[in-house]
This record gives sequence, C-alpha cells and structure tokens, in this order.
Amino acid sequence: MAEHDSNVGGSAVESTPAEEESQVVSPWEVSAKAGGKIDYDKLIEKFGCQRLDQSLINRVERLTSSPAHVFLRRGVFFAHRDLNEILDVYERGEKFYLYTGRGPSSEALHLGHLVPFMFTKYLQDAFKVPLVIQLTDDEKCMWKNLSVEESRRLARENAKDIIACGFDITRTFIFSDFDYVGGAFYQNMVRVAKCVTFNKVVGIFGFTPEDHIGKISFPPVQAVPSFPSSFPHLFAGNDNLRCLIPCAIDQDPYFRMTRDVAPRIGYQKPALIESSFFPALQGETGKMSASDPNSAIYVTDTPKDIKNKVNRHAFSGGQDSIENHRKYGANLEVDIPVKYLSFFLEDDDELEHIKKEYGAGRLLTGEVKKLLIEVLSKLVERHQKARASVTDGMVDAFMSVRPLPHMFS
Amino acid sequence: MAEHDSNVGGSAVESTPAEEESQVVSPWEVSAKAGGKIDYDKLIEKFGCQRLDQSLINRVERLTSSPAHVFLRRGVFFAHRDLNEILDVYERGEKFYLYTGRGPSSEALHLGHLVPFMFTKYLQDAFKVPLVIQLTDDEKCMWKNLSVEESRRLARENAKDIIACGFDITRTFIFSDFDYVGGAFYQNMVRVAKCVTFNKVVGIFGFTPEDHIGKISFPPVQAVPSFPSSFPHLFAGNDNLRCLIPCAIDQDPYFRMTRDVAPRIGYQKPALIESSFFPALQGETGKMSASDPNSAIYVTDTPKDIKNKVNRHAFSGGQDSIENHRKYGANLEVDIPVKYLSFFLEDDDELEHIKKEYGAGRLLTGEVKKLLIEVLSKLVERHQKARASVTDGMVDAFMSVRPLPHMFS
Repeated sequence: MAEHDSNVGGSAVESTPAEEESQVVSPWEVSAKAGGKIDYDKLIEKFGCQRLDQSLINRVERLTSSPAHVFLRRGVFFAHRDLNEILDVYERGEKFYLYTGRGPSSEALHLGHLVPFMFTKYLQDAFKVPLVIQLTDDEKCMWKNLSVEESRRLARENAKDIIACGFDITRTFIFSDFDYVGGAFYQNMVRVAKCVTFNKVVGIFGFTPEDHIGKISFPPVQAVPSFPSSFPHLFAGNDNLRCLIPCAIDQDPYFRMTRDVAPRIGYQKPALIESSFFPALQGETGKMSASDPNSAIYVTDTPKDIKNKVNRHAFSGGQDSIENHRKYGANLEVDIPVKYLSFFLEDDDELEHIKKEYGAGRLLTGEVKKLLIEVLSKLVERHQKARASVTDGMVDAFMSVRPLPHMFS
Repeated sequence: MAEHDSNVGGSAVESTPAEEESQVVSPWEVSAKAGGKIDYDKLIEKFGCQRLDQSLINRVERLTSSPAHVFLRRGVFFAHRDLNEILDVYERGEKFYLYTGRGPSSEALHLGHLVPFMFTKYLQDAFKVPLVIQLTDDEKCMWKNLSVEESRRLARENAKDIIACGFDITRTFIFSDFDYVGGAFYQNMVRVAKCVTFNKVVGIFGFTPEDHIGKISFPPVQAVPSFPSSFPHLFAGNDNLRCLIPCAIDQDPYFRMTRDVAPRIGYQKPALIESSFFPALQGETGKMSASDPNSAIYVTDTPKDIKNKVNRHAFSGGQDSIENHRKYGANLEVDIPVKYLSFFLEDDDELEHIKKEYGAGRLLTGEVKKLLIEVLSKLVERHQKARASVTDGMVDAFMSVRPLPHMFS
C-alpha cells in the first residue's frame, strides 16, 4: 500500500492542463486545491464509489449486534463499493475476508497510519472473519529507493506496530511481498497483468514512459490479495469467497483496476470501505510529511513530545484573543484539536459537549488541547506498551504461511 | 525464453520506417530481408556482441581436453559476449554456472528447439559445471494467451524432452517461473526492474503503450537467473560466481539489458554464447511455423513422417534435371539437407565428402536426402526412447528446490 502522505514519484491522476490547479488524489500524492480542503464529494463522484450512508451503518450495527465504530459513526470511513453485497453475504450466514495493508516506508508509524488498522481490528472482531495484511516492501523499495534489505527490515518493524493493534492471530495472516510473492499469488499477478495495458495504468496511476518498469509492474501485486485463490493455505476450494478492503480512499485506483479485471478472469470483485485522510497537525490544508516530524504525532512520541507538538503545532480554530474567542467562538471546521478528538475520543456525548462549548467560546483552545493531549498520550502509551510486548516470535507466527482452522468461527 | 519461430505480439526492434524492409530479430520475431537470409554479420554489429573465432574454439578444446562440439566446429554457435572471461575464470581453477531456458509454448519440440539443449549438455559435460534451466511458463501464458494451467502443463511436458537430452541430475536444476518466482528470485526481479524504464524496454524489445503490463514486467524474470543470488539453495555465499548463457541470438536483447543493469546492482555481467537459427525445411528464407507441421521435424515424428517431410519439403539446392545437376552440381548455400547434416552428422570427413560430391553433381539430392533421413530418424528415435524413460518422478527430482552438493566436482 502506498501512503497518502508520501509524495515520491507520483503523478497527477487523470489531470488535464485545465485541472492542474485542482485536487490530486493518487496512491502517491494527495493535495487539495490551493489553500482548500480535500473535496470528498467530488472524489466520490470522480472515482465512482458510493457514499456510506446512515442506513448502511445501521445495518452493520444490526448484523454485528454491536455499536458501530467511532470511525463509522463520525464519517471517517465515508465511502464504499459494494459494502451492501458483503452485508448480504453475511446476512445469509456466509462469510467473507478482510484485506488491508501498509507500505513500509518508515520505521515509526504516525496516528494516521493506525486509522485503517484500528478500524480493521473492529471489523475483524465484529464480523469474526479472517484478515490478510499485505506489507508492500517491494513497492517501497521501488518508490522510495530503499534497498531490498532495508525495505524488508522496515516491513518487520511495521508488522510489530500492526500486531500491537490487537489482531487475532487465529484469524490473521500478515505477509511481506518479498517473502510471499510466488506460486498461486504470482499466477494471479500474471492473470491480472494480462488484462491491463500500459495505457491503462497511465490513465489510472499517471505513470510516464520515464517511470521504471518496476512501478509499472506493481499494480497487480496490490490487486491480487483481493482474490482468495492467492492464499491457497487459507482459502483453498473457496474461490468465491468475497473480500472487503478497508483502506484510505487514495488506494481506490488500485481496486478500481482490480474490480475491472476480476470478472474477466472469473473472480469476484472485492468490496471496499474507504476512509478520508487523517489531517496534519498544521491543518487539513497542510500535509503530513515524513521529513517534518512536527506535522504528525508518532506512535513513538513521548508524552512530552505529544504535549509540545499539540500545543505548538496543532492548528487552532480559536480566535486571536480571549475576548474575541468568548465573543465569536472557535471555528470548528478548521480546528485540529477537535478534528483529532473526533477520531480518538470515544464518548459521543463528551465530544458533542466539547464542540458545543468550544464553538460557543466558552471553552478555550488551551483547554481543548489539554484534553487532546490526555487522549493521545493514553492512546500512544497503550500502543507502546502493546508493541513492547510483541516479540520476534510473534512476528514469525503472524507471518508464517499456515492454515487458520478457526478463522471463521 | 521466447522462440525465434514464434511471431505473436512481437514488434520490430529498433526498426525505423527506413529500415522496415530489413531484417528483424527480436525474441518474438525473426525475419530476414525480403527473400534473403539472416545477415549474421550485421546482427553481430547491431547487437554489439563478438564473433566466436577459431582461437576461442581452440582454447575451449585445450581447457576441456576434448574436441569442440559439432555446433562449435561448424559455427552454429557463432557469437559471444565475454566467453574469454569465462575461460579465464575456468583456467584459474574457479568455476562458473550455465543458464539456459525454454518458453513452453507447445507440446512437441522440433529439432531447432533441441539445438541449445544439446549444446548445453556438451558444455555441462566438458566443464563439469552446474546448470539452471528456466521454463518461462509465465511468458507463454502472457504472449500466447494460454491459461496458467495449460502453460504449467506444457512446462512439465517440455521438461521431459529437456531431461531426455541427458542432463546430469547432480548438476542440473530445472524450474518453471510459476513455481519458482518468489523470495531471492523476486527480490532480484525488483532490483532489476528499478533500473529499467518503460522507454528503455520500448527501445530494446519494441513494446508499445498498447501492450499489457505483463509483457512490460517480464524482462526482469528472464534476466535474474543470470545472477547466482537468485538461487540461494545452490549458490548461497557465492555471489560472484560467473554465469554463461548458451542461447539463440534472438535472446540477446534480454541479456544486453541484463548486462547493462548488472554492475548498477553490484552483480557480475553474464557471459553469452549465441547460436544462429535452425532453418525451416522450406529453406533459410522460410520460417518454421507452429501452424505448419511440415516446416519442421518434430521429436514426436515417426520415421515415416521424417521420410515424407524430408523428401517432400526439404528445400533442395540440386538442379532441376539430372543432366543439369551432373553438369552444374548442387548449390550448397541454399540446400537444406546439407544444412541439416551440418547440424547433426558428427563425422567431419563424411560431411566434407558429401558436400564435395554433391556440390560437384556426383551425388544426387535423393541420395543426400536418404542419408539425412537416416541421421534424423536415428536422432529422433534415440530422443523418443530417452523421453519415454523419463518418469514424473524424474521431473519432480530435477525440478525440486534442493542443494546440489556435487555440482562442481
């Protein structure tokens, strides 16, 4: 998987000269129209996916007999493709599997990286289904110009953070491409590659003739975990098992391609449930940047780091003086502390209360930031504790190619 | 490996409009200038390889203490890259390994397909070195639009014919891409792919933007068996082992690319020893065609088939009447029976005698064809016997991923 905050080697997707000033969302670049925010409605229209509406959320709650995850309730995961079909399948008493992934381009994850994994863990727990997690060390080796060895090392390091999110080892298979590509997986890569021309990937991903053929070869690698036959040790004889992919919406191009190809090679189309982007501390018009550690909270940050970053860098929607703030209240639309709280503060009533008081000027930015620091520190501390208990043996266990006999029970 | 007689999906290599009438030699197309023969001198110049001269042949004989193979003595293998360096290595008491391959596009091989394997067996026996044989079932699946299953089946069938050539199981590893791609091999594919742009493969292979990305992804698959680290079960810790590739010269583009990339990723360049093309029965200006069984002798042909094909279809350089033939003699330059004898009749004196008598008109075409039928029938019968004794267990044994502890002794 590529990350929405990386910006290496990417090209504008379907941009024409007239559109050059508008937003760009591709697996390698996410940028809003100058000075603006990402227009997600426009994205849904352009990509051709569907909005995840309240009736679907209600249906998820009914089918899983549990409250919807914060990320569903608050619209973090806001778009989908064929989620209704997955729910139909589940309602009939059949199963499906989950597929998500990460491009291991850096040692430490930031909070935005955790979002899909926290949500995937919820889905796994709620539906009791198997999960495959792809670490695209091959992709990062090619796009970030890392050595094979370094990419593989980062994949293992990132696997520890992923495992720390609490996945159920009896239902979860984590694999790195450099280790796992081959056999049935490679055969599916070839089946997909036969159906996609160079012109097609230029249209979908914005590749150019000066791009190396590694990049041009890569899309099938991310496509084929959508097909159960790529995992014979898990799904042998279960070729029609449906797949649901939780991911950020910048990954949509890969799966549009996959869904286009699937029926041509006799496979089911994967379904998708897609999130918006986690904003940088500097605000939604800014970008999290690996080269600027102050643009994001990392899972390795100390409580002091978190306090400093939030206090110094989190963009505030509050007014420039206490007097004006009491008078006009905070602009919640651009306020990062409130945005972050809406991701990580679980209590709906408390969040509503904060928004109301802050928006009316009765709460000050400093007070909201203090609360956010508490919430994030607790989250990060919990993650660090969990990660510290992840041994190399556990990584080996999650990544071993093995059947999962209890994955559906 | 592609075959020089297949013509599917290939494009002219480095052809410009002005050159369109001239010869084309690519892994997917071999065609001479209209009505002419392949100009091998021009090919050597265009590809930038070297002519294999008598002093190198003498050196091979001296180093191996055995007479050079017919295919060397008679210029079937006529060009090379860095063969002298391989001989230097060998003379210093070090070893190297051989790499050759086949694209399994058809069930039955013809005699032209046997040429590289007969020669490779000679090299293996003479130098006592290990050999890897790649079956590019992935390539044929993509170029010939075969199913994955059919390509894999053909790979196993072809492996039986290859094994029937007499390779030493203690020094030989045969693999199919669909089975073996992965791990260290895939890691090397990515290392190579990073160094080659789309524009570059367009220049080398003549791909177009309408070609599917499977084709564009393939060159690294054929490149990396040139690197010992692609075979950790054989060559672990021996990363500088040199590789010698016996192949037909239409495969040169793959290995020009490989040699260009090798030093950039810290690897040794493979050396090459390259053959001319085995001519069709209809003559050197014709082409062997899978759709015309009368254009070639197949290893599955019966003695009757061979007799009929040679008598009816082998292009003769003899004159149109016995009277003229006695007077002018045969044109040996275009005569296919003599050409085929020069591949498969081992006795140099006998061949010289035939050429002299036939060229002088004292031998008739029918007499030369009779001799050729005997030689080919014996060769094909021997092959059929050997192939019949190749069991599925032997195929499994040759193709099992295993160390070869005695491969250098």
